[in-house]
Amino acid sequence: MATSTTKTGQAMDRAVIESVLRRRLFYTPSFEIYGGERGLFDYGPPGCALQANVVDLWRKHFVLEEDMLEVDCTMLTPEAILKTSGHVDKFADWMCKDPKSGEIFRADHLVEQVLEARLKADKDARGQKVEVDEAKDAKKKKKVKDAKIEKLDDAVVQEYEETLAKIDNYGGDELGELIKKFNIKGPTTGAELDPPKAFNLMFQTQIGPSADVPNGYLRPETAQGQFLNFQKLLEFNQQSMPFASASIGKSFRNEISPRSGLLRVREFLMAEIEHFVDPEGGKKHPRFEDVKHVELTLLNRKTQLSGSTKPDVLTIGEAVSTGLVDNETLGYFLVKIQEFLLKLGVDHSKLRFRQHMANEMAHYAADCWDAELFTTYGWIECVGCADRSAYDLTVHMKKTGAPLLVRETRAEPLVIEEYQVDIDRKKLGPKFRKDAKAVEAAVDGLSQELREKLSIDLEKTGKIEVSTPGVGSGTTELDKDLVKIEKRKRTEHVREYTPNVIEPSFGIGRILYSVMEHVFWTREGDDARGVLSFPPTVAPTKVLLVPLSNHPDFKPFIKKLTSKLRQIGVSNKVDDSSASIGKRYARNDELGTPFGITIDFQTVKDNSLTLRERDSTKQVRASEDEILAAVQSLVDGSETWEQVAKRLPMFEGQETEATEK
Amino acid sequence: MATSTTKTGQAMDRAVIESVLRRRLFYTPSFEIYGGERGLFDYGPPGCALQANVVDLWRKHFVLEEDMLEVDCTMLTPEAILKTSGHVDKFADWMCKDPKSGEIFRADHLVEQVLEARLKADKDARGQKVEVDEAKDAKKKKKVKDAKIEKLDDAVVQEYEETLAKIDNYGGDELGELIKKFNIKGPTTGAELDPPKAFNLMFQTQIGPSADVPNGYLRPETAQGQFLNFQKLLEFNQQSMPFASASIGKSFRNEISPRSGLLRVREFLMAEIEHFVDPEGGKKHPRFEDVKHVELTLLNRKTQLSGSTKPDVLTIGEAVSTGLVDNETLGYFLVKIQEFLLKLGVDHSKLRFRQHMANEMAHYAADCWDAELFTTYGWIECVGCADRSAYDLTVHMKKTGAPLLVRETRAEPLVIEEYQVDIDRKKLGPKFRKDAKAVEAAVDGLSQELREKLSIDLEKTGKIEVSTPGVGSGTTELDKDLVKIEKRKRTEHVREYTPNVIEPSFGIGRILYSVMEHVFWTREGDDARGVLSFPPTVAPTKVLLVPLSNHPDFKPFIKKLTSKLRQIGVSNKVDDSSASIGKRYARNDELGTPFGITIDFQTVKDNSLTLRERDSTKQVRASEDEILAAVQSLVDGSETWEQVAKRLPMFEGQETEATEK
Repeated sequence: MATSTTKTGQAMDRAVIESVLRRRLFYTPSFEIYGGERGLFDYGPPGCALQANVVDLWRKHFVLEEDMLEVDCTMLTPEAILKTSGHVDKFADWMCKDPKSGEIFRADHLVEQVLEARLKADKDARGQKVEVDEAKDAKKKKKVKDAKIEKLDDAVVQEYEETLAKIDNYGGDELGELIKKFNIKGPTTGAELDPPKAFNLMFQTQIGPSADVPNGYLRPETAQGQFLNFQKLLEFNQQSMPFASASIGKSFRNEISPRSGLLRVREFLMAEIEHFVDPEGGKKHPRFEDVKHVELTLLNRKTQLSGSTKPDVLTIGEAVSTGLVDNETLGYFLVKIQEFLLKLGVDHSKLRFRQHMANEMAHYAADCWDAELFTTYGWIECVGCADRSAYDLTVHMKKTGAPLLVRETRAEPLVIEEYQVDIDRKKLGPKFRKDAKAVEAAVDGLSQELREKLSIDLEKTGKIEVSTPGVGSGTTELDKDLVKIEKRKRTEHVREYTPNVIEPSFGIGRILYSVMEHVFWTREGDDARGVLSFPPTVAPTKVLLVPLSNHPDFKPFIKKLTSKLRQIGVSNKVDDSSASIGKRYARNDELGTPFGITIDFQTVKDNSLTLRERDSTKQVRASEDEILAAVQSLVDGSETWEQVAKRLPMFEGQETEATEK
Repeated sequence: MATSTTKTGQAMDRAVIESVLRRRLFYTPSFEIYGGERGLFDYGPPGCALQANVVDLWRKHFVLEEDMLEVDCTMLTPEAILKTSGHVDKFADWMCKDPKSGEIFRADHLVEQVLEARLKADKDARGQKVEVDEAKDAKKKKKVKDAKIEKLDDAVVQEYEETLAKIDNYGGDELGELIKKFNIKGPTTGAELDPPKAFNLMFQTQIGPSADVPNGYLRPETAQGQFLNFQKLLEFNQQSMPFASASIGKSFRNEISPRSGLLRVREFLMAEIEHFVDPEGGKKHPRFEDVKHVELTLLNRKTQLSGSTKPDVLTIGEAVSTGLVDNETLGYFLVKIQEFLLKLGVDHSKLRFRQHMANEMAHYAADCWDAELFTTYGWIECVGCADRSAYDLTVHMKKTGAPLLVRETRAEPLVIEEYQVDIDRKKLGPKFRKDAKAVEAAVDGLSQELREKLSIDLEKTGKIEVSTPGVGSGTTELDKDLVKIEKRKRTEHVREYTPNVIEPSFGIGRILYSVMEHVFWTREGDDARGVLSFPPTVAPTKVLLVPLSNHPDFKPFIKKLTSKLRQIGVSNKVDDSSASIGKRYARNDELGTPFGITIDFQTVKDNSLTLRERDSTKQVRASEDEILAAVQSLVDGSETWEQVAKRLPMFEGQETEATEK
């Protein structure tokens, strides 16, 4: 798929949909009257309602159906936690400064933009049709100075393409070399760029009045709060494993140079699940059987390394059994993610799961599959599904000593035969003084393999050498007066283990934007009109009430209908403006309102109503009770419009200008 | 009301309820395994569900019922906005440092604590019963060094009491004087304290990679985002006034020394409404008529100034007509706030509305009433309802030039007779050069009164004197060659005005905590057991499913019931642990689960179930269909337990240990 199309297959013009979304206040740049602030957006009423519906659906689909433990943790996070998690040291992008203009660029994006521009220019020069690269997360193409229409050597083309395929894998030094090698200059000045520098993406702040330096951050993910509460959650779950926690909340990334609208923002709503599972036994999932027949579109690592973006369509059962997807739990969540996205109105043909390349993964991840949605920006990572292994619980336990682990009584006690080391502390202390503790720790830390080897040394030579960094020469000699090594049996009644974590992590804003592109189309007619065909469940407003005119006879009907719809939990809006009925419906097609009810003079006579469906613009006419019942079943999904249209009488009235009959 | 009691009138022990709430993971200190961070709390599963239900109810009660425009704006806020709004300069508390220990205290809290401790000591010395001060927002009493049991002079007692009554009104210098005058020292060291310094309560941060200094803040309220979007919202509302925007989201305050659990935190969920209303015509509200009979408990400014805390109980109709509550819109919202709080389970006798003292109000407020809830911490401000007048829209419009106002075609054109000034620019320019603009602006800015006076001067003397700060001597002389002042008529077809704002602002965390105290009681019995009697609508979980034992015959029933309850939208949990049924119910009484369904051997035989109600522990037994229908109507509020208990057969089975029959 090279270019983006609307729901109905029309060529997609991003400017058109963005204009509709901003005009209808789905979202708007924050602080616009102050000139705006890049990477920050506000949601207006329809965007806000859409977001609330998506979050509600997420909660039902994951938290309630899967019986997860939802938590709400703070965004403000003291430095110590994020130091341990690795974010203080590793959560950074590489930035390049143009010393002449002071402009700052994200190094990988700059390389990518320049190489793509040159490749495009090359194709233009060769007279080829230009296809948009779509393999990676999208970045808005910036106009760059050196994109003259210029033919490149075939070898150069190949080198550029290989570089682009691996663009997410380079570190700062490598990016600096690429910039030199490919002679990439400041795009607006042509100046030589400063070498790439790491820029930590977390927002720093100072918690409390007494700190002199920043001592905290805004969280970059909701996950850490869930890990830190692991013990309490396990206890709440009555010590039963496996279980999942979940959290919905804002996270923050101080993006170097955010463009791409809602897709790259500095403050964003996330919904994250941390599913804690026993690492032994292959991370099975009890409900995997129910989903194993479901087909997914999978773009694996190997295919990507070969330079291709052609995915495989496989059942998750096949994918797990062949080892392509590592385990059942990961596979189960990939299916649940797909189900969720399809419920929202995602176009199935614009959804794929892409496996992360080894170097591309976050520092904590052991494996990761992204659910990507295709948009005018290319393929967009919208949900990550990572296997974080035992990384987080292990580092926090090591740092704090808190027992972030599961203790399980063994069905059968386990007998272990192992080498045990006895130390004579009475002699060790006087001999090593201040170093005694370090020496003892070094001995305690010896692996079983080393212990076996040392037990032979001890028997043969009467002494052993132990590596003791920081003590004396770094190696310490201990003789058999001080240590004894023996093979003994030990019975373990309780098993202790650190759970592994499977983490499905949803970027709600990216999902919202992608869904809006997927359900958008233009109705041909007098003038082309935008339509957002949201499924009724997620549509911001379900029903528009349209009185034919502002005749006072209609008012009591509007009041009654509003209150009845509210009672059955159907959100509705009244449009009693003086615009024609057709114009009012057109406005609401852009807002994605799936149903409209017209109140006219026939209503006043016999309490009958017309019900209009957004996508077909077809109408039915029936009694108030029948129409309200139909609306309810349409909104809760128990009936489709086709079914309703079949059983209720069609209405062929005018949709445009209405006159009193 | 001097001391706090439980729902059933028992003396309230805060330690008991806090222990239940933390044990059951309603909330927990954040980052506890890292030693915690003061003023930050996480919500566990029940707290999180409770919060989601309260937010849901808020959205229905306000946003949907009142047809408000909900928006979701960013928390990150550039400095310029908060500079204009006044928060950079004025959103501060006064802090005092103990130079010996480095400890930092909030100055007003310290004065308050010391004086209260001395008054208590005095009463002890006089042998009087000590009553807890309850007039103000609560602060945890810290043990202070100088609280020896010591009798005070009557005059001193009076001075302390007067100071405490006005404690919210003092500025930094005044607090410093009080500290000297009353000889208040560092509580742990006895050292003389440094003079109070202002500490801005906003968290600072740096947005983007290029700033060298902090250039942004975390918002201290959601309101500013709503004001900045005023124009777009008015447009979205098709230019129709009045209307309200609303927002639910986190805000932040860098409290100097947060204690008091959930009541004084650094990160908190707010729900705020900005109701925009025409300032002309007395700020009437179209639905005021519907609520004017509702009684409120009002503690007005005058009563407080007299040193009393005895409120008046008045209908809102009376309160508005006598001018006690300034206008209908403010009054309407006070009623809606009360309705909302009562729906949540707030004890009506522990709710009052307190008017802010003049000096106590935020810098933007023209009038303010707080809904306060009585808890073990005293009376707690949970909802503020402020009249922000046109303050915010005016300052932002002045700063940015954006037309944050309403333009309304007048039904009748308005003819205005006014003094107009004509300036001869051709002469003004050459005469004043660089000052010409400032002079012209000064002339344009002249009030009608001054213009009238100057027109007489001009006629008499042939010249006028205009105040021009910064130009020459500060006064500029203009003769009749340069200016002409005439009274003329002007016809205005469009009226422009800046709306006033009525702002109900809800602290969700404070409301949650207060509700939890209000619905808590202890069931007498073998051992006292805590019960949280949440109304079904807000209870975290609605139904607990309890199989008699883990007999395999029960499993299919559990599975079927879980799925049926989910279908009718009733959140439920299964407790199939091996604890006795009585213990399992006791656990869920602490979680506030209103209903329990037992699955026993009779169920297996005839598909009948028992339904237990939390507060009465009474049970009914009926068919599955009947029980599910009853649960649904209990949860959606269409039936009470009393009604259900009357129509379904009572069940007198054992609640404690269950045995197979």
